[in-house]
Amino acid sequence: MRARAIVLLSGGLDSTTCLAWAQARYECIALSFLYGQRSTTELDAAKAMCQDLGVEHRTIQIDLGQLGGSALTDHSIDVPEQEQSGIPITYVPARNTIFLSYALAAAEVYAAQAIVIGINAVDYSGYPDCRPEFIAAFEQLAQLATKVGVEGNALKIETPLLHLSKANIIRLGLEHGVDYSKTVSCYQADNQGRACGKCDSCRLRKQGFTDAGIADPTRYIPNK
Amino acid sequence: MRARAIVLLSGGLDSTTCLAWAQARYECIALSFLYGQRSTTELDAAKAMCQDLGVEHRTIQIDLGQLGGSALTDHSIDVPEQEQSGIPITYVPARNTIFLSYALAAAEVYAAQAIVIGINAVDYSGYPDCRPEFIAAFEQLAQLATKVGVEGNALKIETPLLHLSKANIIRLGLEHGVDYSKTVSCYQADNQGRACGKCDSCRLRKQGFTDAGIADPTRYIPNK
Repeated sequence: MRARAIVLLSGGLDSTTCLAWAQARYECIALSFLYGQRSTTELDAAKAMCQDLGVEHRTIQIDLGQLGGSALTDHSIDVPEQEQSGIPITYVPARNTIFLSYALAAAEVYAAQAIVIGINAVDYSGYPDCRPEFIAAFEQLAQLATKVGVEGNALKIETPLLHLSKANIIRLGLEHGVDYSKTVSCYQADNQGRACGKCDSCRLRKQGFTDAGIADPTRYIPNK
Repeated sequence: MRARAIVLLSGGLDSTTCLAWAQARYECIALSFLYGQRSTTELDAAKAMCQDLGVEHRTIQIDLGQLGGSALTDHSIDVPEQEQSGIPITYVPARNTIFLSYALAAAEVYAAQAIVIGINAVDYSGYPDCRPEFIAAFEQLAQLATKVGVEGNALKIETPLLHLSKANIIRLGLEHGVDYSKTVSCYQADNQGRACGKCDSCRLRKQGFTDAGIADPTRYIPNK
């Protein structure tokens, strides 16, 4: 029997690449979050993708929005269209810690030996919880926090994208057969899953295809 | 200005003692969770208590129940009335990790310098995430996961009950003016907040009052 992994899947470019990578190594269970995002089209993409791939998909509803403090969940803050310096206002407090904690719970329930997360230290836009030292600390915590860990089985946090440029992430995904036209990365995609082309996330994604020398398959909202 | 603390408050004996302890040291914001518990009377107790004390109280709804795996959230599993050995089936996978992650998010939003949690290593009933090494690992994570930590301000995880027996927890609470008749610890309290007197949690609590030599103020469901 193959070892199981819980794969955090938003439906965006990075996490979809992770899922394809993980499928070559583990029996995967995908975990998505509904957390008061402005756009749920990314989540619809995740759902459709798992159906296509025959991967079990669980969605957990969490209310990060109740605590406020980010342009991604607080609808009264505008998503910036210019590059920011320092920690951006699109930062959701403790988001990856919360996501990984739920993945830890799922890992216990499914007796999984790994959690796969598409964290990236190259294009991480200044989020503190996207750094390698954060992941190392969480892996340490996972051993101590769980039945699995206490009983002596290691629980690995896999970060296949950690040191890859966006262009190399795209190359990795293409090697694993990802169809990027089906992924949604935009912070403010429309209800057909079309991207704005202007937000931080769109800019990074666009540049990745350019740098990889691959035609960008993203569906953009036509200019008015 | 006093430093702020996020206090995890279930409305039970331990967390109420923590809140009283923390109020002597910090400006407190209490955080409770609605997580598919069998009984929400504990939460009602938390709410009433914060109103009495004039403490800001936030409740976050989380769906641990969706993942299953514990007698406390899976209503098809009976709560055991005999002492268990090893990790008990009332263990909710990664519960404290998830709770502390939300507290971390709240600490960022409120610019708090501490999180107070009523974890106890003496009567911890075999839960892996109630051990001192788990807390140390989480404190380490907190520095790396947050804006606050990255900007060089320490975020402390305070565990005033860590090494106290139940009897000493009760003594500490009484010193800080806690009225224990208003707290609910029972895993299956009725809708008036009355305790079963039989579950693991009731047994530990009862023994605590006996050991402290203090009359038990708990309201029990009368025997039929």
